[in-house]
Amino acid sequence: MIKIKNKEQLVENGVTQLNRKARKLALKSLESALNAVDPKQLMKSRLLLENSKLKVNGYSFDLKKFNNIYVIGGGKASGLMAETLEQNLGKQITNGVVNIPRGVKYKTEIIKLHEASHPIPDMSGVEGTSRMLKIAEQAKREDLIICLISGGGSSLMPMPRNGITIKDKGEITDRLLKCGATINEVNTVRKHISKFKGGWLAKKAYPATVLNLILSDVVGDPLGFIASGPTVPDSTTFSDAVKVLKKYGLWDKSASSIKKVLSNGEKGIIPETPKTDDKVFKKVYNVVVGNNRSATLAVCESLRYSGLNTLLLTSTLEGEARQIGVMLTSIAHEVSMFGEPVPKPAGIIAGGETTVTVTGKGLGGRNQEVALAAALKIGSMDGVIVTSLSTDGIDGPTDAAGAIADGKTISRASQVDMNPEEFLADNDSYNFFSKLDDLIFTGSTGTNVNDVSIVVVLQ
Amino acid sequence: MIKIKNKEQLVENGVTQLNRKARKLALKSLESALNAVDPKQLMKSRLLLENSKLKVNGYSFDLKKFNNIYVIGGGKASGLMAETLEQNLGKQITNGVVNIPRGVKYKTEIIKLHEASHPIPDMSGVEGTSRMLKIAEQAKREDLIICLISGGGSSLMPMPRNGITIKDKGEITDRLLKCGATINEVNTVRKHISKFKGGWLAKKAYPATVLNLILSDVVGDPLGFIASGPTVPDSTTFSDAVKVLKKYGLWDKSASSIKKVLSNGEKGIIPETPKTDDKVFKKVYNVVVGNNRSATLAVCESLRYSGLNTLLLTSTLEGEARQIGVMLTSIAHEVSMFGEPVPKPAGIIAGGETTVTVTGKGLGGRNQEVALAAALKIGSMDGVIVTSLSTDGIDGPTDAAGAIADGKTISRASQVDMNPEEFLADNDSYNFFSKLDDLIFTGSTGTNVNDVSIVVVLQ
Repeated sequence: MIKIKNKEQLVENGVTQLNRKARKLALKSLESALNAVDPKQLMKSRLLLENSKLKVNGYSFDLKKFNNIYVIGGGKASGLMAETLEQNLGKQITNGVVNIPRGVKYKTEIIKLHEASHPIPDMSGVEGTSRMLKIAEQAKREDLIICLISGGGSSLMPMPRNGITIKDKGEITDRLLKCGATINEVNTVRKHISKFKGGWLAKKAYPATVLNLILSDVVGDPLGFIASGPTVPDSTTFSDAVKVLKKYGLWDKSASSIKKVLSNGEKGIIPETPKTDDKVFKKVYNVVVGNNRSATLAVCESLRYSGLNTLLLTSTLEGEARQIGVMLTSIAHEVSMFGEPVPKPAGIIAGGETTVTVTGKGLGGRNQEVALAAALKIGSMDGVIVTSLSTDGIDGPTDAAGAIADGKTISRASQVDMNPEEFLADNDSYNFFSKLDDLIFTGSTGTNVNDVSIVVVLQ
Repeated sequence: MIKIKNKEQLVENGVTQLNRKARKLALKSLESALNAVDPKQLMKSRLLLENSKLKVNGYSFDLKKFNNIYVIGGGKASGLMAETLEQNLGKQITNGVVNIPRGVKYKTEIIKLHEASHPIPDMSGVEGTSRMLKIAEQAKREDLIICLISGGGSSLMPMPRNGITIKDKGEITDRLLKCGATINEVNTVRKHISKFKGGWLAKKAYPATVLNLILSDVVGDPLGFIASGPTVPDSTTFSDAVKVLKKYGLWDKSASSIKKVLSNGEKGIIPETPKTDDKVFKKVYNVVVGNNRSATLAVCESLRYSGLNTLLLTSTLEGEARQIGVMLTSIAHEVSMFGEPVPKPAGIIAGGETTVTVTGKGLGGRNQEVALAAALKIGSMDGVIVTSLSTDGIDGPTDAAGAIADGKTISRASQVDMNPEEFLADNDSYNFFSKLDDLIFTGSTGTNVNDVSIVVVLQ
């Protein structure tokens, strides 16, 4: 069971009885969501093993027909996915390598769990990925490769093209992540400087069968962008990658090795990533075992069970975090005043992943900034809370998963001499909520399906 | 009847049959909305005259008991409100002055319609307002002052404090409007450099009875902010006004006359605006006759009548225009994929007023920018449109009321060599949609209850 560690304190901080109730319901629903997207849980409920047949999402694989079953992959949740898969398939697995973040421990005997660095890739990541590629290249027509992909897979499975160092690649990734580029844009670049991503794994695994089990951390589940789509035809081009770098003014700052690869790619000197008409993809099965919608649906169910009228706004939320905070609060006002778009008591749920364009020097995360912007707009409404949480338990470069705000947040802040607008302007949502004890702590959850934001309006 | 002048062309531009249908429904509902908030219509339906009793919103005024009925006020819709009121009350009105924008013509015989400048105030505006103040000061306990307030009232009823020129006031207003300040922030400053706003009119009218009929153009109808609340207790202070100017780096750029007034105010040398405990407000009745919700409800009704499942998200929408465009489109995706938050065919309605932080040199407006940002996110979905409209018919400094976007917008743009992202980066939404013939033209509508954004998802 994944738990919110400081739930009682967070409930207590509500000050009024109604705020406490609203906080309690929201936090409980967030816990339900986290457990619904626990990789162990998902692998158990979505994969069915019957008479040596592995059934998943309408596909059925007769395991007896394969000479070897290899397991590869990487991502923040892939360790737990591997552990659960091995518990199911046991010695039917020939061998495997899965790259996981340093410091997390899972029990596997056959699949080798290989620690690597995230979010900045390292040589250990390259080593593990190169072993995966070797497995793929040696696999035969009668072999099955099960690939376990989850969020963070891009960084954990680095395999830069010849000439590009891991440092070059890390630098450009870091810059892209900091400049406000979308994850799709980051991955467009990543795919074109990689020997593994953007469909290359599928190309190398051919003619083996590839079953790709995906825990999606990209809004809207565009398969080509989850872990930069190693088994998925790439719809982007070298030119797109160059455009992304130029859009954010990063072209001139990129390592010459990267510019050379991308330029050569544009000129056709090195081959494009495999495209949709490539025959290799006929032997690839991509299955999403969990995504943001799994989490938002669990929140809805929990809130509905608690007696709220729920409205799932979207599971593909995007946009600048502080704007989303304002938008969610404007809906809260409408519910409070007119009972629209849902009658009170209401729970409104939006999943996805917002962006923070960093202009200040503070410490914070997307979800904490959603909550801070919301706090400024809630006014003095009682029984209204806005909370936002990163399902991996790590919101931005902080140890918090998110934060919670209500109609007392601003007055409590001014009691301790904090000016919320200054904290927001400085992207310092962490220190703001930290001082109020309104950060949500879960620790690393072992899963990642992006973020969930909840508005509860009791009256 | 207010009409969208180029409706047929806009429908035709949909390219596909489904897009055309979606466009048609949305535009029809926008026309319904505009007519629902037509001031003439609102004054007729909300004000009831029976046996010399004027009934409005639960209040009843026995007109025979008043010695004189004066009509004052100002705003973009106040001319039409005055005309309709005079048609109802006729010679019961003693006299009156209402400030209206230059160039609009209404028929009144008793109430003098006084033309003034908007949005930058002029001396003619001051002259009219000073006549209103004279009426208020001379009114007796047995007199009734009916005040007709609508959007634009702040600029049309300028009455700067002694020492501040109309040019000083105009400059600071212009700067505030351009720097991304909210209308509430703009009005906080306006009220503290005015002799009329922020409750001063009520103070001067006392002990006469004041009936304030308001067509609200401020999100959420905070009465003190509509036309800067001449008859409403002010909740802001001189210090707040100073803070706003400093927040946007405008303090040092403000005229010395303005800095002097605000500093003197902070020191208590000149009196604060009248506050809520002032007895003068006991004789004031503030009634909102129309607001954004009136318009959004009319859109809902029209779309529902056309067979769509509707969802009124909010009538207090705020936020950066391009972010709202993205947010609305993410809801469209959820509807299209999962039938949530409403089943297809669906209409989602959000009213309010977004903001544009101008960083480019292009031409555009809030609503056009919502549509442009949405166009970039709609992808190739068929039968999905996003449209946004300013109910006054004038979106930003353009002659268009708004724009409409669908899944063909981006491909049509690339056919004429337009890069939508560049237009968005340059705040050039007007020229973008102009080239596609996708601007919505209504001409000046004579009303203003902010903006309405609509998402239609047919499949």
